[in-house]
Amino acid sequence: MNLLFTDFETSGLDPDVHEILDAGLILCDIDTMEILEQVSVKVKPEHLEISPDKTALAINGYNEAEWAEAGTLDEALELIQPITANAVFIAQNVYFDYMFYRAALKKTGRKNLLHYHRLDVGSMAFPLIQPYQMSLDKLCLILGIQPEPAPHRAINGAMREYNVVCKLRDMAKKGESFITEPQKFNSNY
Amino acid sequence: MNLLFTDFETSGLDPDVHEILDAGLILCDIDTMEILEQVSVKVKPEHLEISPDKTALAINGYNEAEWAEAGTLDEALELIQPITANAVFIAQNVYFDYMFYRAALKKTGRKNLLHYHRLDVGSMAFPLIQPYQMSLDKLCLILGIQPEPAPHRAINGAMREYNVVCKLRDMAKKGESFITEPQKFNSNY
Repeated sequence: MNLLFTDFETSGLDPDVHEILDAGLILCDIDTMEILEQVSVKVKPEHLEISPDKTALAINGYNEAEWAEAGTLDEALELIQPITANAVFIAQNVYFDYMFYRAALKKTGRKNLLHYHRLDVGSMAFPLIQPYQMSLDKLCLILGIQPEPAPHRAINGAMREYNVVCKLRDMAKKGESFITEPQKFNSNY
Repeated sequence: MNLLFTDFETSGLDPDVHEILDAGLILCDIDTMEILEQVSVKVKPEHLEISPDKTALAINGYNEAEWAEAGTLDEALELIQPITANAVFIAQNVYFDYMFYRAALKKTGRKNLLHYHRLDVGSMAFPLIQPYQMSLDKLCLILGIQPEPAPHRAINGAMREYNVVCKLRDMAKKGESFITEPQKFNSNY
């Protein structure tokens, strides 16, 4: 069985309104974590005039020049779908990326070939890194994983997710953790 | 911040068609894991004639006699919503339960008070228990957590999720794990 690390950069937060602009996917063996395939593909937005989220666009550095050669959503899925067969979809805050993938399949009339299970990177860190860290940036900082250059690119996001999971597995194997005991009562006050 | 362990027993797998029959929720402190509140509530189905999933009904032991006193979905949410405020929703295969919760809010016109993050129990086990185990039953068996009596009840499901996460945190703290090295090549064949 394979794991499909996924990161989508989008024009906003709502999968019913906003669009995937950049997709990064890394397929690996779920047991050995050996990388089998990678896909990095830009998608030309069709409806950027509808509620564009300026914060999202600034984060992913969307601009017409760099997206001039980008293809359609359907062309991107044509590249992505072969590596999704029976793979377990995994992302940081997986619900967000999965909702965009589901919406993309619906828009293009394509079949969902993924395994029905989904995994979440942030959840994987929960037992080993306490207190709970919500952001991938913070997890990378704690785990000593290099930051990526701005603007954010989806394939770099997927690679950071992959590196976080490899590091967490190594930590578990070696009996390591980053645990700070919760402070229920602060005796200084 | 609080964690809201959730288990829904439903009349089938499709949140657009099927209904919540039994809801079990356990609220705890995300740092100390201290249990703060619990809600266990049966819901009377309105459309059991539409595509009832016999497998789902057998698992959760639905029968008219035991559901005779059950209230409406809106009455159940009236009990549930007060403990959802800014809580992080967590479940085994969280996408399934969260989709049913989202559909329930939509049906009753109620607001989503949850925190925007969601956590997944199965993902939490991934680094510490290898190879990957998909089922909560299997995780409980490996972790020495008591099986629950049949038929399955949602509050027992939520309590098992809670116990699994507490056990994983303890393991991480003690440097313990259940890791079997992947066998890439079987030399016996």
